[in-house]
Amino acid sequence: MKLYIGNKNYSTWSLRAWLIIERHQLNFEEVALKLETEGFYKALSGLSPTQKVPVLVDGELVIWESLAICEYINEAYLSGEAWPDCPKLRARARALSSEMHSGFLALRVEMPMNIRAQRHVQLSAAAQKDIARISQIWQTQLSEFEGHGGWLFGSWSIADAMFAPVVMRFITYGVDLGPQVKAYMDKVAACPAMQKWCAEALLEQDVVPGDEAGVPR
Amino acid sequence: MKLYIGNKNYSTWSLRAWLIIERHQLNFEEVALKLETEGFYKALSGLSPTQKVPVLVDGELVIWESLAICEYINEAYLSGEAWPDCPKLRARARALSSEMHSGFLALRVEMPMNIRAQRHVQLSAAAQKDIARISQIWQTQLSEFEGHGGWLFGSWSIADAMFAPVVMRFITYGVDLGPQVKAYMDKVAACPAMQKWCAEALLEQDVVPGDEAGVPR
Ligand SMILES: N[C@@H](CCC(=O)N[C@@H](CS)C(=O)NCC(=O)O)C(=O)O
Ligand SMILES: N[C@@H](CCC(=O)N[C@@H](CS)C(=O)NCC(=O)O)C(=O)O
Repeated sequence: MKLYIGNKNYSTWSLRAWLIIERHQLNFEEVALKLETEGFYKALSGLSPTQKVPVLVDGELVIWESLAICEYINEAYLSGEAWPDCPKLRARARALSSEMHSGFLALRVEMPMNIRAQRHVQLSAAAQKDIARISQIWQTQLSEFEGHGGWLFGSWSIADAMFAPVVMRFITYGVDLGPQVKAYMDKVAACPAMQKWCAEALLEQDVVPGDEAGVPR
Repeated sequence: MKLYIGNKNYSTWSLRAWLIIERHQLNFEEVALKLETEGFYKALSGLSPTQKVPVLVDGELVIWESLAICEYINEAYLSGEAWPDCPKLRARARALSSEMHSGFLALRVEMPMNIRAQRHVQLSAAAQKDIARISQIWQTQLSEFEGHGGWLFGSWSIADAMFAPVVMRFITYGVDLGPQVKAYMDKVAACPAMQKWCAEALLEQDVVPGDEAGVPR
C-alpha cells in the first residue's frame, strides 16, 4: 500500500487516514507531498480525481476521501475491529465520524492545524459553537466509557482518528475544556503513532501561509 | 423505526436517508418537520445532538447524519446489499459518497434543492467546478457499468441515494450534461421512491426564503 499525504504539520485529513494504518502497523509506503506546490498537483494528477490528500493506492485500487479510506482499511485489513463491535455503538461512532467529516467548518477555517505553533485566535460565535459541540461529544463518550480504555468508545476506533486533528488544534490554540477532556487529549497526543507524526511534523520547514492563523502566545 | 425529516421540497439530507429506507420498503414511520420553524427545534431538542434532520430512531438507538444512517440501515436491515459487493467497488462507492457528503459547498449554497421550482441561476466559478466534477463522476460510473442496470454502480447503491438531491437540483436549474447523464437523471427521477417523494413535495406550501435562489425560467 502507498498512502499519499500532505505536510504533517498541517494536513488534518492526511493524519486521519495515516493514523489508522500506522496504529495497526500495516505495511505501507508513505508518499509525502507538500501542500500548495506544483509538485503536489503533479503527483496527484492522473491519480486522484479530487487532487486532494489523502489518497490510498492498494494494488490497482485508488481511494480518496479520508473516511472512505478508513472504512476500506478496516474492512480489508482489520476484520472490522476499528469500529465498535456492537451495532448500536458502531452506528453512533459512524454518526460522530460523519459529523466531523462534513461539519465544523468555522473551527476548521479559524483554527487550522499547525502542530509546531502555539497561538491565540479570536473566534467567531460559529467556531465557539463548534468547540462546545466537540466538548459535548467528547465528554458524553468519555463519561459513558469511563474506566474502559480511555478512547471515545472505550477501545480505540476510527472516531478517535477522525477527532485527532481537533486535539492537535486545541493544543496549538490553548483550548481548555476541563480535566476529563484534558486526559483524553493527553492520551491522543501521547500515543506512539501520534508521537511519530508530531516528531516528523516538527522537522518540516515549509510554511503554508493560509494555515498560519492567530498570534503567538 | 421512525425517521425525522424536513420539508420534502427542500431537505436534501433527509431525502438521502429516506430513499434507502423507502426504496427497500422497510417498515417506518415518517415524522415530517418544517425547517426553520419553532416546532422543528422543539421536536429535535433532547432527541438529536445536532438539531438537524434526518434523525433515525430505531428502538433505543438514535442516529443522526445521513451517511451514518445509510450505513446503519444497510448493515442492520439489508445484509450489506446497498453497497457494491466487490470490496474495491465498495471502496469507490464510499469515496464518492464521502466526497458528496463533505464537499460541493458552492453547488449546495448556490443551487438549493427546490423541487417545485424551475429556475435559472448565475453560478460562481466554484459552483461550475462542482458541476464539472459531478459530471465526471457520473459519466465515469455510467460508462463503466453501461448495460448493467443504469445506476452508478450498475445496481442501485447508497451512492445513488447520496447524489439523488443533485439530480433534483439539476432538473430545477436546467443543467444539461448530455444524453448519458440525462438518461441517469431520468432514471433517478422516475424511480417509484423518488416519484413518491416529489409528489409529496409538490403538496407542500411552506416557503424557506434562504432556499429560493435564482429567477424563474
Ligand atoms: N474530504 C476530504 C478532504 C481532503 C482535503 O481537503 N485535503 C487537503 C489537505 S488536508 C488538500 O489536499 N488540499 C489541497 C488542495 O485543496 O489544493 C477527505 O476527507 O479526505
Ligand atoms: N451532515 C448532515 C447535515 C444535516 C443537515 O444539515 N440538515 C438540514 C436540512 S437538509 C437541517 O436540519 N437544517 C436545520 C438547521 O440547520 O437549523 C447529514 O448528513 O445529515
